[in-house]
This record gives sequence, C-alpha cells and structure tokens, in this order.
Amino acid sequence: MALIVQKYGGSSVADLSQIRNVARRVARTRQEGNDVIVVVSAMAGETDRLIQLAHQVCESPDLRETDTLISTGEQVSVALLAITLESLGIPAKSFLGPQVRIITDNAFSKARIRNVEVKRLQKELQAGHIPVVAGFQGVDKDGNITTLGRGGSDTTGVALAAALKADVCEIYTDVEGVYTTDPNICPEARKLPRITYDEMMELASLGAKVLQIRAVEFAKKYNVPIHVRSSFSDKSGTLVSKEDEKMERVLVSGVTYNKNESRITVVRVPDKPGIASRVFTPISDAHIVVDMIIQNNSADGYTDLTFTVPKGDFKKALKLVKKTAEEIKAQEVLADENIAKVSIVGAGMVNHAGVASKMFTALAKENINILMISTSEIKVSCVVDAKYGELAARVLHQAFGLYKGELRKEP
Amino acid sequence: MALIVQKYGGSSVADLSQIRNVARRVARTRQEGNDVIVVVSAMAGETDRLIQLAHQVCESPDLRETDTLISTGEQVSVALLAITLESLGIPAKSFLGPQVRIITDNAFSKARIRNVEVKRLQKELQAGHIPVVAGFQGVDKDGNITTLGRGGSDTTGVALAAALKADVCEIYTDVEGVYTTDPNICPEARKLPRITYDEMMELASLGAKVLQIRAVEFAKKYNVPIHVRSSFSDKSGTLVSKEDEKMERVLVSGVTYNKNESRITVVRVPDKPGIASRVFTPISDAHIVVDMIIQNNSADGYTDLTFTVPKGDFKKALKLVKKTAEEIKAQEVLADENIAKVSIVGAGMVNHAGVASKMFTALAKENINILMISTSEIKVSCVVDAKYGELAARVLHQAFGLYKGELRKEP
Repeated sequence: MALIVQKYGGSSVADLSQIRNVARRVARTRQEGNDVIVVVSAMAGETDRLIQLAHQVCESPDLRETDTLISTGEQVSVALLAITLESLGIPAKSFLGPQVRIITDNAFSKARIRNVEVKRLQKELQAGHIPVVAGFQGVDKDGNITTLGRGGSDTTGVALAAALKADVCEIYTDVEGVYTTDPNICPEARKLPRITYDEMMELASLGAKVLQIRAVEFAKKYNVPIHVRSSFSDKSGTLVSKEDEKMERVLVSGVTYNKNESRITVVRVPDKPGIASRVFTPISDAHIVVDMIIQNNSADGYTDLTFTVPKGDFKKALKLVKKTAEEIKAQEVLADENIAKVSIVGAGMVNHAGVASKMFTALAKENINILMISTSEIKVSCVVDAKYGELAARVLHQAFGLYKGELRKEP
Repeated sequence: MALIVQKYGGSSVADLSQIRNVARRVARTRQEGNDVIVVVSAMAGETDRLIQLAHQVCESPDLRETDTLISTGEQVSVALLAITLESLGIPAKSFLGPQVRIITDNAFSKARIRNVEVKRLQKELQAGHIPVVAGFQGVDKDGNITTLGRGGSDTTGVALAAALKADVCEIYTDVEGVYTTDPNICPEARKLPRITYDEMMELASLGAKVLQIRAVEFAKKYNVPIHVRSSFSDKSGTLVSKEDEKMERVLVSGVTYNKNESRITVVRVPDKPGIASRVFTPISDAHIVVDMIIQNNSADGYTDLTFTVPKGDFKKALKLVKKTAEEIKAQEVLADENIAKVSIVGAGMVNHAGVASKMFTALAKENINILMISTSEIKVSCVVDAKYGELAARVLHQAFGLYKGELRKEP
C-alpha cells in the first residue's frame, strides 16, 4: 500500500463532468489499496476571471486582497470534489491552506511555503477519509491568506508529498507527460518516460509549461518522485526523479524553443569595471528579468553588451538602456524583437564533449544563423531569427535522434 | 464620534458599480468622523448559483462541504470592496469569519454564533483601517467553515455591533425600511420610522423579509439599535429598538400577508390525551414546521384538529397525517392549499381590548370568511381563502388607519 498525492490542474476540474472523472480516478486509486491525498487547482479560467474582476476595480489592486479573492477558486473546487466523492460513497473532506496550515511567508501573490503541518491530514487518513486540499494557497503567521503564484498548486502537491513522505506525487494535466519537444511544432515529438529534476528544471524554465519550476526545486530538495500524466488517459506519463544508476544517461532529452524574448545590444561600451552594473541595475530595479547576457571580448577598449528580456518588458527596458548608454557614452543601442531561443537539454551532456558543436553544425546545415549562444552544465541555448525558430527546433530534434525508438524505460 | 456597523446585502453589492457606491457611502460615514466596520453579503445571485452547482452533483450535498463552497460568495465581496476602498485612498482590510474568529457551533448550513473575538478588529480600527467583514460565515472550534443560514449576514452585523458595543447597526437593503404592509399589494403602505424588536420579530416571521429573525433576537438580547435603510437613497429608514417612553404606542404597526401556507384538518378525532402528540410527532420528525394549530372544543367526545404547514411540505405532511388518522380512527382528513394568512402586528395591542374584534368586523364587512384565527400578545392572524388575501391586507391597512399621517417620529 502506497501513499499517493494526486494533483489535478484546472483543465482536469474544468466542469462538473470533469470533476466526476477525477473522483472516479481517486476512487480507483483508493480501491487499489492506496492512501490518497488530492490537491486541486481552480476550475479552468476561474483564476483569470477573478483577477480580471480585481483589475476592473483598479489597475494595481492590493495584493493581500487579491490573494483573498483568487483563493476562492480552489475553495470552490475542493468543496465540489469532496461533495462528488461523498456522492460516490467515498468519505472525503476538503481542506483549505489555512485549515491544513500550509504556512508561507507574507509575499502576497508569490508566497513561499515555510512549513506544512501534517497532523490533521494524517488523522483524516487514519479515519479513512480522503483529504481534498486546495492548491495554490497558504496562510502567513498572522492568518492572512496567501497564494503561491502561477502553477502554485504543483508546489502544494509536492510540498504535501514531501511533508507526508508520500511515495509519489502524481501531477495530472491535459498532456500525457513531458515531451522531447513541443508536439505542435514537431509531430515526431515523443513522450519522455523518465527525466531528472535538473533536466525538468531546464525544460520548465525554457517554456515547457508542464510543471511550476519551484515545484521541481522542491521535489529535488526533498527527493519526491513526480509522475506527470494525463487525467484523460490511463497511460503512464513522465517520471521526474533523481538520477539513478539504472537510468541511461541520454545525451539530449529535449529541445525547447521560446519566442517570448527580445534582444538588446549596447554597441561600443567603454570596457571598464562597473559598466555592466551601470547597465543592469536600472533594469533589475524595474523588476525586469534578464535571461541571457553576453559580452564579447574587448579589443580596442570597447565591447558590445547583448542581453535578452521578455517581450512584455521590451519597451520599458529599451528606454532605460538608452538613458544609460548616453550616460556611459556607448555608441548606440540596437534592438530586435524578432528572435527565438532554441535549447537542447540533457543530463548526459555533462560528460560529453561535442554536443554544442553538433548543435551548431546542425543549424548551419540549414543556413540558420546563430545570434547568441549561452550554455549551462546540462543545456545549450541559441538565439536565432524568429522566423527560423520552429525549423531550428525540428532540425535539432532530428539531429539528436529524439524521434526514434524508446528513450528510457517506462517508470 | 460614533462606532457604526454597516451591513450591505447582496443587492447592494450586485456588481462593481454597486460596490463603488457602497465604498463611497462608507467613505462618507468615515469622513463624518465615525469609526466604521463593514459587513457584506455575497453578490446578488452568487449564493444561489453555488448551491445549484452543489445540487447538480448530488441531491443532498454534504453540508460541511456546501458551507465551504458557498462561503466563497462573501469572500469575493469583501476582497472586492476592500480593493475598491483602497483605490479611493481609504485603508481597508478584509476579514473572513475564521480570521475575525466568529465562533459558531457546528450545525453546518444553520450555525449559531457562540462568540465573536474583537481584538483584531479593534486593532485595525485603532490603526485607522476599515475592517470589511464577510457576513454569513463563521468557524467552529475545529476550524471548519460554517454558515448561518439565509439572511445570516444580518446576524453577523448585529453580532459584531453587540461585541464591539457599536452605537448602531445599519442594515442596507433594496427597500427604504420596514413598511406598514407590502407596498406591492397596497400602494398606501408607508415606511415605519420606528418599531420595537418584538414587532419586528412578528413582522419578520410573518413574511416581511427585510431582516433575518435571528438577527432581531440577537439585537434585542444585546440591545443593539438596528437602522434598516436603503443603499440607493440617503433617506433615513426604520429604526428597530427597544420600546422607550418617548415612543408612542401605536395600536397596529403593520399588516402582513403570506400565501405560502397550506391547511390540513383531521375531522372527528377521538378527544383523549395523547392524540395531538400522535398527530404531530411524525410531522416534526420529518422536519416539517407547523405554524398555526387549532383544536375546537370537544362536544361529543370528538374534536377537529386543524393546522398549517408550508406549501412545500404539504404533500409530505398530508401523507403522514392520513396514516396517523387511520391509526387513531379519525373520520377523515381535509386539505386546502388555497389559503392566505393575514396578520396585524402592534406593540400597543397588549393593553387594548377590541383590536381583534375590529379586525374580524373589517373582514366581515367585505364578506371575507375567516377560516382560522390565532393570536399572540402583539399579533392577530387570520387564515382566509387565498383569493381574498390581498384584499384582506388592504382592508386591514385601511381599517387600522395605517395610511394616514406620521406614524412615529423619524429616528
């Protein structure tokens, strides 16, 4: 008998018939002899509807009140799921963040979990009840309701699994798992049976929106196996876990691409200490997240500084950079919104030479020019012209053999 | 400077523009130098929508879960009102039942308030914040969310006013106060400037749905003045308070009528001890509320037993009574769904003879036959044929002079 935490996303509880579907799945897991704790998100679209309501009142609504407002989405879901389970004859009880006591800091709208109390949930499990816990929400030490940010229910699920020492945290979503690349741009994309936490983090941050990145960090820290799978199918999905010896080290697990970035270059910056700080401090003060930063080698006492920011912050960032460029007497500022970032991710890269050059060669063969390059231990990213983005992803997917055969054993 | 609790009903917060209207009124009350605590209901229609959702899942949804579900209605309202107040530059903070600590028993869906903690609210008032408190909800000693039943936000308002020793509890609704009768059936109906708790309770229980009856009981117990008024007008409404010497004792304050009852008569019941108990125990076991009960004097060892039940419970009650009638060998059971109950209410009645006979004479003059009569200290009720209901109310309104002049001084 295992203890399983099952987290269902908004698309899995979008309406009453979906909720019944979830209830039947929970019932089956229990009938198979497992203890189950369920975590649910708000019904699809509900969080957005509530946020919009707040924004109709004023442009920047108070964050404490917005958290109180949007946390009702999960409150509705847990109550409806508990009622549905009871109607199937399965004893169930809903719990909100403050009722479990999922203690967070007080950073409204993006709170971080500090502690999860397990006593109440364990008592319910012992009494034969299925606890249905509201995802996405917690409570700070003063009793204020907090929320964990987009995708926060994933983190709730993993945090509960960690605190209760569950055997697995199953994350149910509307896709069948984590894919080698986006099936929308590459029909040959295949589901990955296994993947490491580190690979998942690189994939998540690069735009594969299956799992909240903080949930993966949390899972890695407490070594909670995550099983990403579809609530619309019985197939097993992708197991995210730590690397073990039985796991074949695949060179490249996945290819991601992202069109949501834009590029800014400050040309002929005087190459002296403190210049990068002068450029990036105003940008970070404006809460703009800079992704890639590249500085070429200096030749004649001048250098070019290139970086990427999200498209949504492009105009604001450009204005700030132009002001700084004038102050530090840079020659000019170039900007480009039409870029795409293509990345290859794989835990096997660490010990293999030649992965990056194989990537560059594959792109060159298709005459795709590389505008920027950045690397980490298990990732290589290239910025290319936006129009080549999808093609680049397909070329790399092919070049690293991701379309063929079994990648890893099913979990 | 006064401490005022303002309670706004669902029609007063029906949409964002109504909520802005409420915020402006709260702001004005504060600018006039008062401390304000606001209590709000769910946006009009929201509670019904949520209940319907639960009933779509199953016929009799779990009550604990239903309370968790429907309490989100008020949670949305308080957050939106707090955001609106903040956007007007007025520091405000929302509080849910569990956050204030409005402690109730655990009778889900109809919980009763046991205690209200005032520390947190007093602290917020001292800090210059306006507490915006969710009506209708509380928390039991185990941390479960409870609700107080239909109209429960009135009780929340009065309970907070009592606990905080507020000067007045203003109940904002979509009518301008308590009327001498229903203006829809009698255009001459007039607003009552003052009324006693006892009169209000009789009026409330008889169908004038302005105030939850438990709220009035609570107000009487703790002597909290209630000011019933409209959120769409600046006119003063009806002050509900204890009787004082300055208050002129009006013979009859109001006329109510109610078409929601039905009548059952058990004919020729053997007149011996224990028979009434035999008849009414199965009905009360089925949670059917019996309103009027009349037993005629026995002549020949037999008596007729007549009583009224809500129309919604009519069929169920009739079935139970027929079974009992057979057992106790009554002659037959008569039933009538086409009845109306007309009542006159007035604190002055206690010391005046002839009020009831004046009522009967007025009805007789219009050839309206009286089917049942029941009286209390400050009320006389008659059951008549349904088709005469409205006419009877108008006749009585006229007969007791409720249409003319000032009734009582404005509060």
